[in-house]
Amino acid sequence: MEKLSLFLPSSFLAESKDLKIRTYKVGLIGRYAALFRANNIVIYNDAPEMGESDDSKFITDVLDYMDTPPYLRKKVFPLTKELRNVGILPPLRTPHHPGIEAQVGDYRQGITTKRTRKGTVVDIGLDQLALCKEKLSVNIVLSFRIVKLGKEILLEPDEPTDVYWGYKTIAVNKNLTESITMVDPKPDLVIGTSKYAPNITTIFDEVSASLKESKHTAILFGGPYSGINEMIHDSYLDYELNTVPKQGTETVRTEEAVASTLAIFNVLLNE
Amino acid sequence: MEKLSLFLPSSFLAESKDLKIRTYKVGLIGRYAALFRANNIVIYNDAPEMGESDDSKFITDVLDYMDTPPYLRKKVFPLTKELRNVGILPPLRTPHHPGIEAQVGDYRQGITTKRTRKGTVVDIGLDQLALCKEKLSVNIVLSFRIVKLGKEILLEPDEPTDVYWGYKTIAVNKNLTESITMVDPKPDLVIGTSKYAPNITTIFDEVSASLKESKHTAILFGGPYSGINEMIHDSYLDYELNTVPKQGTETVRTEEAVASTLAIFNVLLNE
Repeated sequence: MEKLSLFLPSSFLAESKDLKIRTYKVGLIGRYAALFRANNIVIYNDAPEMGESDDSKFITDVLDYMDTPPYLRKKVFPLTKELRNVGILPPLRTPHHPGIEAQVGDYRQGITTKRTRKGTVVDIGLDQLALCKEKLSVNIVLSFRIVKLGKEILLEPDEPTDVYWGYKTIAVNKNLTESITMVDPKPDLVIGTSKYAPNITTIFDEVSASLKESKHTAILFGGPYSGINEMIHDSYLDYELNTVPKQGTETVRTEEAVASTLAIFNVLLNE
Repeated sequence: MEKLSLFLPSSFLAESKDLKIRTYKVGLIGRYAALFRANNIVIYNDAPEMGESDDSKFITDVLDYMDTPPYLRKKVFPLTKELRNVGILPPLRTPHHPGIEAQVGDYRQGITTKRTRKGTVVDIGLDQLALCKEKLSVNIVLSFRIVKLGKEILLEPDEPTDVYWGYKTIAVNKNLTESITMVDPKPDLVIGTSKYAPNITTIFDEVSASLKESKHTAILFGGPYSGINEMIHDSYLDYELNTVPKQGTETVRTEEAVASTLAIFNVLLNE
């Protein structure tokens, strides 16, 4: 698997009213995504007949906040009422969240702050601002490699390929079926999770082989109101799987399905 | 596997100061225990040199609260300051948490309220109190089978064997090694989880066979301050396993290790 996208319903928080708990629940998703190296988290609208989801923006903001290196957060996220509980979020502690030490060759995310004749000024969270000689849009977060340290810090736009470099959150405000077409490249393996589906153990080896061969795997999770099979036609799915056979509780919560499915797929991939 | 015990450190909440989040984090453990049908949750003391853990009682109380059928909670748990956030806990929705309907033959948990000449009066959360002809201790929660409904409800002490009937929480206030001796029967399969251990995929089939044969499996989880290998000698362990190979984040949190390990063992058991 070269790329992994998770599809989550915007109603995922519907059963929680408390802002602190809502923030923390999104935090669980961010942690599991990073723990299992997901590249995209797509928030689809599982009740499009109700119009745009209010929660979709909140979920996206909290996930983006978590993925942003701590040294950039205050610059990227204005303090809004909705984000007032972000202090309780667990840190990701991923390679793209480095500390305040840096060496030539290190990769770091930075925010572009202004354009000068020499190029673009970038804040990469060090004592000193850095310069990238390319002309870049201002006020966006990008990844760079440090090519020179000292009196002047020089950067080149670059991203490492050998370490996990965080996830991108995409709020598509489309139904599940449409949302699959909105990630790039088109997923070549689409897996739905459902308690009504066949037990994953019945086709362990087949799923393992498919995961290993896949260039871009999409895993679809249902929500508190609708299961996958109510939202998408079978023909869009390569597999529909129950990853929690013999569940002891009547329902499996979305965050629990995410944890369980990713943990199992991770070992299947590393077999 | 006939019986499953989870061993968790009392320092598990050390990184969370907020009572609501602390309550919710324990709730995650309760949910995962029930989802994967654990029978015991043992809270060991991972810093015995500091004396008795303050968190141990809190963790135990919240787990016990979750496992208690909703209709008995107010009778069993006095409203304490520490438990003031239990409203945000997700329900378990297990078979031992039935609704207000009952039929002859149903199993229900009840609290014994007083002894009479006829036997013991039991509150099983129906409109009417029930009677068990046996002489039972008063003010404890027990499991019963309904043998007669109508003007009089008659019970017999009994527990179903074919459905998951919740977990027992045991705060032992002992170190990890000693705590293993305090569950009954003695575990015949002890598995430690650690990021420094061999990848579970290297001995998949062997672990699967051991889990299936085991009468009582103990799974040991480390905490924010110490890993399993710092707390227990190898000779006590049948396996030490990394269940999150190639983790994208620097650390795996205890609740994440619980979710991942139980999800993987569950499919190995149901292969």
